[in-house]
Order: sequence, then structure tokens, then C-alpha cells
Amino acid sequence: MIDERFSKQLQFILELDKEKNIYRQTSLTNHGRKENDAEHAWHMAIMIYLLKEYANDDFDVKKAMLMALIHDVVEIDAGDAYAYDQAALDAQEEKEKAAAKRLFGMLPKDQQKELADIFEEFEKGESAEARFVRTIDNLQPLVLNNSNGGTDWMEHGVSKAQVYKRQQRNEKGSQFLWEYTKELIEENAKKGSLK
Amino acid sequence: MIDERFSKQLQFILELDKEKNIYRQTSLTNHGRKENDAEHAWHMAIMIYLLKEYANDDFDVKKAMLMALIHDVVEIDAGDAYAYDQAALDAQEEKEKAAAKRLFGMLPKDQQKELADIFEEFEKGESAEARFVRTIDNLQPLVLNNSNGGTDWMEHGVSKAQVYKRQQRNEKGSQFLWEYTKELIEENAKKGSLK
Repeated sequence: MIDERFSKQLQFILELDKEKNIYRQTSLTNHGRKENDAEHAWHMAIMIYLLKEYANDDFDVKKAMLMALIHDVVEIDAGDAYAYDQAALDAQEEKEKAAAKRLFGMLPKDQQKELADIFEEFEKGESAEARFVRTIDNLQPLVLNNSNGGTDWMEHGVSKAQVYKRQQRNEKGSQFLWEYTKELIEENAKKGSLK
Repeated sequence: MIDERFSKQLQFILELDKEKNIYRQTSLTNHGRKENDAEHAWHMAIMIYLLKEYANDDFDVKKAMLMALIHDVVEIDAGDAYAYDQAALDAQEEKEKAAAKRLFGMLPKDQQKELADIFEEFEKGESAEARFVRTIDNLQPLVLNNSNGGTDWMEHGVSKAQVYKRQQRNEKGSQFLWEYTKELIEENAKKGSLK
């Protein structure tokens, strides 16, 4: 009964499993272990639903949740580049393009196009969905790190200026969450967890 | 700027983080470590999107994805009961009810009702969304376990009859995926990974 279409879908679904082994630089709450990409995406998708009232513009919640769920799939091939490691970030774009081609290319043509389009939309960061998803992509590790007293930043010697540069795009998705972001940054700078 | 509503949402979002530490009896592909509830829910939500064409009935994809994302939140308090441990399953219902009350109760009233209702709908398993989500809830660990040659079943001495009993509800969500489920069970029984 496994026809070509279903077989392709199953192979992609099994391949996705690898995202659970891509670890990030964010620690779980209560000074836990590092978080992986699948957990981060799960947390983001629920946050998008719960915090949707704070978005600057109306957006398609289903599309934004799906965008969050798949936005880091490319890191299965490309690995995670830490948000405050500029050299790694510079090298990342080409690697992620190749990864998107290989990974989404495993799917039947129609679904390949759907997911590749949503991923590209996220990367561009222009649509209402992409702007809000990118805000939540920044906010989720910020909230975890703040709950741990900013230890992720201390571990890497991150500066207040670096965090402002990274987080400033939050304003495009949500003015409300951007105000909260600034509060968290200033609090952490005051208590010395940011250089 | 943190008003009462936003403060409640943030506290719930931080509490959700604990789901990343609730481990299941399913091993990741390539004989990896055990999977946790957050990863399982993330995987399910993408599967719901990719396999929606196989559902018996039309359903609201956004609602089903959200249902998958939150369906195991109660295990933060109640812990995971293994699908083939009947004593644990019998004790689980009361614990999960109390957990739902405490956890969703952290949210503002409107969101508390929304999530509690979706969770209850999942538990009842009657709506088109709940039936398909429950099918995927069963299928996701089956696909991972099958990719590892059925070792999760071998570890716990699970029988073919137990798996049929657990998986038979898949038919209510998707006749197509139920046919595939039976194929996987029979294959594993034939090669001896099911008693």
C-alpha cells in the first residue's frame, strides 16, 4: 500500500527526527541542559498562538505556527549558528539554502513547494507572519535566558549592544513585545549579565 | 509594562518549558536517546499538516495542530504513562484532570477556557480533529520504533495483541493510516520484535 507519494512523506518525517539532536546555546529553565531545535520550535508555535494579540498586524495563525515548526529544519544539515557569533552567521546562508533544497526536496512536488515557500518567506522576514514569527524566534530564548539570570549571555561574554542589534527586529513584529524586550535587556545590563 | 494578563501568559509559557524534561519510552531514530513530550508534540504537529490528506473527514488543521502541541502539557504534573502499562494508564486520568486545572488555570480566563476545551476535546476523541490527532499520536512513535527494528517493544516485552488494542483507534481518524499501521504491526510480529 506504500505508494510513491506516501513513501516520500514518510522518509521526510523520519528525516525530521534529526532536528531533535541539533542543540542550541539556550539553557532550559531552572538552569537545565541546552535546548534543541525541535523543542524551541514547539515552544515558539504555542507562544505564537498565546501572544497573537500583541502582533502589530493581523496574520494567518496557522501559517505562522507551521512556519515556526519548520523554520529550523535546515539546521539538520547546516547546524545551529549562535545568534551572537557573526562569523558563523555569515557562513550560514549558503549552507541553509542547500539544506532547504535537499530536505524539502524529499517531499512530493506540491508539498515541497509549500514548505520551501514558507521557509523563504520566513527568511525574507517581510510578511506579517514572518515578522511575528521572527519576533517570537528572538523572544523565546530571551525569556528562558532571563529566567536563568542571563547565564547564557555571561557564558559567551555577550554585550548589550550585540543583543540590541539582534533583537531590534522584534519591533517589526510587535511593538508591545519590543517594549518588553528592551525592559529585559536593560534589567540584565543593570545586574551585570550583559557586558 | 507587564500587566496582569501578559504576566499570566509569561508564567504559563515558562511553565511549559518543563515538558521538555518529560521523557517517553520511544527512542529517536538511529537508536538514539529517549524522546521527550515536547519533541513528540512538535513532530506530531508537522505530521498532521503533511498527512492531512489521509484523514477520514475534513478537519480544522490549525485547531488540530494546536491540539497536538498542547495534548501532553498535563504530563508536566502527571508524568508519562507508557502506552502498554495498563496500571499506569488507569491511575492517569485523575492525575491529568488535576494537572489540566492547575496548568491551564495559570492563563487569563479566555485562554484558559480555550486550551482546557481543546484538551478535553482531545481526551474525548470524538471530533474529526481529535480522531485524527489521536491517530497521529499513535503513529508517530510507531514510525520511530519501526525505523529502529521495533526495539522499544522488545525492551518492554510488548505483544502483538497489546499493540492492536492500542492502535485500533487509528481507524477512526484515518482508514489509510490504519492500513499502514496494520502492515507495520504484522511486519514486526513476523520478524519477532513483537511477542
